[in-house]
Amino acid sequence: MSIEVDYRFPGGVDAEKQAKVIAVGQTVGTWDARFAHREESLQSHLGEVISIQTEATTGNRIATIRFPEMNVENDISSLLTMIFGKYSMAGAAKVVGVRLPENYGVGPRLGITGIREQLGVFNRPLIMAIFKPALGLSAGDHANILRSVANAGLDIIKDDEILGDLDVAPTRERLAACRQVIDEVKQETGRTVLYAVNVTGSAEQLLAKARLLVQEGANALLLNVLTYGFSVLSALAKEPEINVPIFAHPAFAGAMCAAPDYGMSYSVVLGTLMAHGGADAVLYPAHYGSLPFDPGEENQIRDILRSRGVFPVPSAGIHPGIVPRVLADYGEDVILNAGTGIMDHPDGAASGVEAFFAALERNARGESFDLASLPVGALKRAVEKWGLQL
Amino acid sequence: MSIEVDYRFPGGVDAEKQAKVIAVGQTVGTWDARFAHREESLQSHLGEVISIQTEATTGNRIATIRFPEMNVENDISSLLTMIFGKYSMAGAAKVVGVRLPENYGVGPRLGITGIREQLGVFNRPLIMAIFKPALGLSAGDHANILRSVANAGLDIIKDDEILGDLDVAPTRERLAACRQVIDEVKQETGRTVLYAVNVTGSAEQLLAKARLLVQEGANALLLNVLTYGFSVLSALAKEPEINVPIFAHPAFAGAMCAAPDYGMSYSVVLGTLMAHGGADAVLYPAHYGSLPFDPGEENQIRDILRSRGVFPVPSAGIHPGIVPRVLADYGEDVILNAGTGIMDHPDGAASGVEAFFAALERNARGESFDLASLPVGALKRAVEKWGLQL
Repeated sequence: MSIEVDYRFPGGVDAEKQAKVIAVGQTVGTWDARFAHREESLQSHLGEVISIQTEATTGNRIATIRFPEMNVENDISSLLTMIFGKYSMAGAAKVVGVRLPENYGVGPRLGITGIREQLGVFNRPLIMAIFKPALGLSAGDHANILRSVANAGLDIIKDDEILGDLDVAPTRERLAACRQVIDEVKQETGRTVLYAVNVTGSAEQLLAKARLLVQEGANALLLNVLTYGFSVLSALAKEPEINVPIFAHPAFAGAMCAAPDYGMSYSVVLGTLMAHGGADAVLYPAHYGSLPFDPGEENQIRDILRSRGVFPVPSAGIHPGIVPRVLADYGEDVILNAGTGIMDHPDGAASGVEAFFAALERNARGESFDLASLPVGALKRAVEKWGLQL
Repeated sequence: MSIEVDYRFPGGVDAEKQAKVIAVGQTVGTWDARFAHREESLQSHLGEVISIQTEATTGNRIATIRFPEMNVENDISSLLTMIFGKYSMAGAAKVVGVRLPENYGVGPRLGITGIREQLGVFNRPLIMAIFKPALGLSAGDHANILRSVANAGLDIIKDDEILGDLDVAPTRERLAACRQVIDEVKQETGRTVLYAVNVTGSAEQLLAKARLLVQEGANALLLNVLTYGFSVLSALAKEPEINVPIFAHPAFAGAMCAAPDYGMSYSVVLGTLMAHGGADAVLYPAHYGSLPFDPGEENQIRDILRSRGVFPVPSAGIHPGIVPRVLADYGEDVILNAGTGIMDHPDGAASGVEAFFAALERNARGESFDLASLPVGALKRAVEKWGLQL
């Protein structure tokens, strides 16, 4: 099997020349007669230009290069170094597609199936909230917030991605306080609530902390994959002791994906690389909210993740009034991740969760979401605040 | 102490509004009366807009935000999540400056002083080569190449960044073969040659491998920081057993730095973040070569690295005929890193090294590099091939 990568060049770039530069320069480089005795070996490591096409609408050129799989170590870090290491600094070029062998990298340990089994929820989208405000609350504050949303039926909660292991609410204290709530809810209702704890630190500390958190009852982890490194994601994914789902956060993705003619497309980084990097669920910006995100790119991420059994978690701009539209786009196998869309409900966070479940039920029954037709209650209050997007 | 970050917005973006979005959205977020009891704590974590200025020539706006140091974990990964995590996905904005407290992060273990002491070379630039071709040679081939350049006086050699732990030349075998050469050279000449071995793998494997390599005689390591993660760099830098310099490679930097209006500037990523992340020496594209690199940015990287005692390693386009110009720009505290500029010398790699030393001597004596005035020998042959840039 081989690895195929699509590079997009703006019109004006000599795509034929650049494609060869990549195929040779990102693999073996050139050699002379001194290495004649290694000719066969050197040849076998060379990349190959497969095709060069022109986008009719834009005039952009797309060159597809095939790389030998034996050039890399079956992981994302060595892959990135090969396909876009030095070449990323060579001028305008964007990696817009990466096709990997089926078994390349690490698959999800739990993924869609495993997370549903953890929760015992099989026939509806999952509802996920984020602790807010992000910084400044104590561990006890977190537990109080969790108690209110968990009792209202929430499936999953996560730390804000910028909440690390800080004095104001150290990670283990947050876990201890929230774990108690999770146990109470389990005892009282039989329901499981997942808490994706943000794991941070230098790689060594982070891996040790992740093991410790799982020993102490963490039932999910959150990792800022792009600021800590894909090598950390795969280490977590391969560690047998860490038998809980890893939620991958997209923080910093825009730094490598947002530019039109540089970096890599969001669907490559948040789709392909995450799905082969060991994530169980991947958060990414949905196009429903205020972030400038392309619906086509979002669909690609969704499909790439699902093709590997990874849970798509569209985020940003998710509120109860958007449920019909999200479900039309996504169907059931989706985690609806709402920050303010739950925490800032006018009647409090528990009402935010209730509004989501009311929206799921109403949508399942095919009933209207028009304000006039909504019964008094949490959903109506949410739609009054955030509106309806159909 | 606090952290200050400069964000550059293209004209047309409402910089005042976006600056507030960053100061609030990348720290605490908003809160309501329910959190009145935490008012003081929440306030203390908020970012603050310090200034907003307009670049006269471009109309770009630069907003400076101050972040509380207690929001982050004294490392680069949590810093990136805070200053540009979610916001990187919010539209056109580029991080063009980051000012950290002096003791933020990890300093170099060895840096300029320590690497010079390892080598016993104090009064001239260091000369560094790269094994080429990059993929397809055996461990024994590497040793043969090293023997020839080491005997010619080379200071440092490094793996190509894309050569990982591959079947064709496994990392430990390369080290074993090259270590023997290093020992021979030491015994015969008293000189030390550093070999920066590329460490790869998932974070767990990588850290274990790094320890093992050092135990087995590695006297330097190479890390692709941006594809493996800053959290891996700091783990290596903080590990007491790894008492050798870490050479940071810029592979993938263009994906986050090359776009005009997105991502972060090269001087932030390859200067500030590397210098506070634990690197001892940092490779980066020089503007001398074919890569589209801005001399001003290169000077900033150089100055930022040196201010923290980290060795600058301008790379790309480095050949003997460029020595007078590089030394005019850099002075002595620089590592001249030549790939083809050594390995592709018309008379072989050893002559490539000789040409560099001849160039250093000739430059020190203030003698002309004009072809006509160069004596017959390695330097003349190099200038015939690659020309002279003054």
